[in-house]
Amino acid sequence: MTNQNREMKLGAFFMIPGHHVAAWRHPKAEAENVMNFEFIKKLAQTAERGKFDMLFLADGYAVRAKNQTVLGQTVNTMFEPFTLLSALSSVTKNIGLVGTVSTTYNEPFNVARKFASLDHLSNGRAGWNVVTSNTEEEAHNFNLDQHLLHSKRYQRAEEFVDVVTQLWDSWEDEALLIDKESAQFADGSKIHAINHKGEWFSVQGPLNIARPVQGHPVVVQAGSSEAGKELAARTAEVIFTAWQTIEEAQNFYADVKGRMSKYGRSPDELKIMPGIFPVIGQTENEAELQKRLLEEIIPEESGVSLLSSMISVDLSRYPVDGPLPDLPDLEQINGGKSRFKLLKDLAERENLTIRQLYQRIAGARGHREVKGTPSEIADHMQEWFENGAADGFNIMPPYLPGGLEDFVDQVIPVLQKRGLFRTEYAGETLRENLGLKRPENTIVERIKERI
Amino acid sequence: MTNQNREMKLGAFFMIPGHHVAAWRHPKAEAENVMNFEFIKKLAQTAERGKFDMLFLADGYAVRAKNQTVLGQTVNTMFEPFTLLSALSSVTKNIGLVGTVSTTYNEPFNVARKFASLDHLSNGRAGWNVVTSNTEEEAHNFNLDQHLLHSKRYQRAEEFVDVVTQLWDSWEDEALLIDKESAQFADGSKIHAINHKGEWFSVQGPLNIARPVQGHPVVVQAGSSEAGKELAARTAEVIFTAWQTIEEAQNFYADVKGRMSKYGRSPDELKIMPGIFPVIGQTENEAELQKRLLEEIIPEESGVSLLSSMISVDLSRYPVDGPLPDLPDLEQINGGKSRFKLLKDLAERENLTIRQLYQRIAGARGHREVKGTPSEIADHMQEWFENGAADGFNIMPPYLPGGLEDFVDQVIPVLQKRGLFRTEYAGETLRENLGLKRPENTIVERIKERI
Repeated sequence: MTNQNREMKLGAFFMIPGHHVAAWRHPKAEAENVMNFEFIKKLAQTAERGKFDMLFLADGYAVRAKNQTVLGQTVNTMFEPFTLLSALSSVTKNIGLVGTVSTTYNEPFNVARKFASLDHLSNGRAGWNVVTSNTEEEAHNFNLDQHLLHSKRYQRAEEFVDVVTQLWDSWEDEALLIDKESAQFADGSKIHAINHKGEWFSVQGPLNIARPVQGHPVVVQAGSSEAGKELAARTAEVIFTAWQTIEEAQNFYADVKGRMSKYGRSPDELKIMPGIFPVIGQTENEAELQKRLLEEIIPEESGVSLLSSMISVDLSRYPVDGPLPDLPDLEQINGGKSRFKLLKDLAERENLTIRQLYQRIAGARGHREVKGTPSEIADHMQEWFENGAADGFNIMPPYLPGGLEDFVDQVIPVLQKRGLFRTEYAGETLRENLGLKRPENTIVERIKERI
Repeated sequence: MTNQNREMKLGAFFMIPGHHVAAWRHPKAEAENVMNFEFIKKLAQTAERGKFDMLFLADGYAVRAKNQTVLGQTVNTMFEPFTLLSALSSVTKNIGLVGTVSTTYNEPFNVARKFASLDHLSNGRAGWNVVTSNTEEEAHNFNLDQHLLHSKRYQRAEEFVDVVTQLWDSWEDEALLIDKESAQFADGSKIHAINHKGEWFSVQGPLNIARPVQGHPVVVQAGSSEAGKELAARTAEVIFTAWQTIEEAQNFYADVKGRMSKYGRSPDELKIMPGIFPVIGQTENEAELQKRLLEEIIPEESGVSLLSSMISVDLSRYPVDGPLPDLPDLEQINGGKSRFKLLKDLAERENLTIRQLYQRIAGARGHREVKGTPSEIADHMQEWFENGAADGFNIMPPYLPGGLEDFVDQVIPVLQKRGLFRTEYAGETLRENLGLKRPENTIVERIKERI
């Protein structure tokens, strides 16, 4: 594909009712509909009308609040991603369905199976955002006093992804025969045990579901730490990542794509999609007013709490209009390391108070906030896309449904006019729309190697 | 409710493409559609047209075949229940969605959350069939050399159900406020940690999803062992059970309902629904031909293998037209104890060969096979229903879609005409249709007790 007709990939980040921490207070947000499936169905159909490659659901295994006040001020009820994506699969046709599942509090057999099932249900539209869990609150819901160390989480994640991939391959593509006459529903010799015995998992297989439509559901990752980059270079097909400046994004893009060759992969087998939090106005002034509205609706406790959790340091004891306290070194952080670094750098660079910093991150949560008219937002995306910083973007509407509708009705037509984005879905599967090839099944070779 | 207008409850057992072990070979079975969602959607809509209370999905965590031949002769690819039920939730309106989830290879936080999510998605139609896992093959997919002992499995199951119930209650019904003005999305004082610390689990809570629409999704159980009966009397709202004779069914019915008072429950808080495998013909002769067809399509290896797994004894070394070998005592069985006893008794009572026994159980798998015209089948159901053997039935169509369509179009109208079954859905939730009350939330009392 030449640069002339290279098209960007787009994900729609479905945080209900919006990506902003106080989205639910936005006058046009349908906060009363957070547990209403019909509302979310309409959002998915809007994203599909916009020809988004995929909709994306984040996840977590605990309420995100350290105290009763914040618990009441923030949205802590959400659909579990698998049930929601599956329900959406039967009322959409083309859009990819990407769900976050942690490798920390699940078993590979269950996860391989659920994604295979979603992929069959949706005729090849499933994707897995692989994450590790890093909060104490989540550990406490799964029999642990504290969560795993960063290095242990990544070791477990690597083995987890490997076992899941093997399970997806445990049925060869040609295994199903369905011949009533000869009583051969399947060719038993094409369904394989995987006999995995590793440090974390011991899994015999085969899976009890045929190979997914896409071979493997698309594997998405988000970590930007050293371990995260290496895992992504080896196994990811999409990366969701967070950068404030084009220089950071370009460095990351070159770094990760540069690591792929040693795993026998070419750079276009991985799509790097930074997050964008678009604040859209018909005029610059309208966009500015929109931004101020979003700042004003943040309850102070929620803002401080969000910031505290993002930098893994409790800020509630410090004056909100004063500077950040001295922060620990990166090595001491056993949470989201890359997010910690990004925020620490930002606060130092711009000399921000605690309030200014939480206002800055309450919407984009560390991703790039882009404010302006539809064509200004398209300009920004085009600049990153054409200058080695991104293959596409994960769009984070501030509030719903308006933030998504505005993007679909106002920004996407500009991108399409400039030849930067599709006007029709090209393929039937998520993989085809992303321009990723269907993975070969390597189970037979792997079994031979072991013997 | 007087006996005059007491109505039976009906479940539709969705084993795809039929409950018979060789269903897929039936000339009218749509075997090529086992992984086709549109096919299953049509089945669900057929069951809903028949006013079934619920459709029911069994589950397992491994392929069900001991060797390559049987692996090829039987259907070992299936949708994972949660993804399938969720996909069905958005294309049905009234029918209950009951999924099997094992307490052996899952975590209570994940299970509580998924059922809460399905209950919200479906506006109150979710049900949980609680099982324990008892095969070596499943253990091998979850890091274990052998599966848990029967008694350990039940201890874990009891605690598991208790934790899940507490998590469902961790949000009070009135917790959501959604008041934009005062920045109160929820009343934080009505969302509670559960702080469970038990022998098997340590779970802090609260859940990250509001209390289910039904309070608790309906809790279904199937075990008929001593431990299973006690657990059911304490916690179950529906029991799926397997009996060959009305006497056995009556004994079980009286036994379990008799145990409920010591847990402060009244007998009508539990619906006992034995399985029925209906072999329907327009005439008795047609039904007999249907039955013979079902016997003839069973590959010998599959029949022996199914029987072996059901009695936890490998029969492949014995002559298929000879008698069963000497079987171990019930105490030595670490599998499905009640199913073992049922089959052992049946073989002895009727002096059956291995082949005769597997032919007998290949369809109903230990449940009651009822063969005849629609009105004969209705007669049988009426007899059990009116004589203290059943509150309703779990219907197991031999093959799909025909077996279900015949039941809906031919048997259900007879039951309706006799006033034994509804002609319209009475309620909006599964719980309402089953005549079960919405459980009160006891979390506040439980927390007080602990302090």
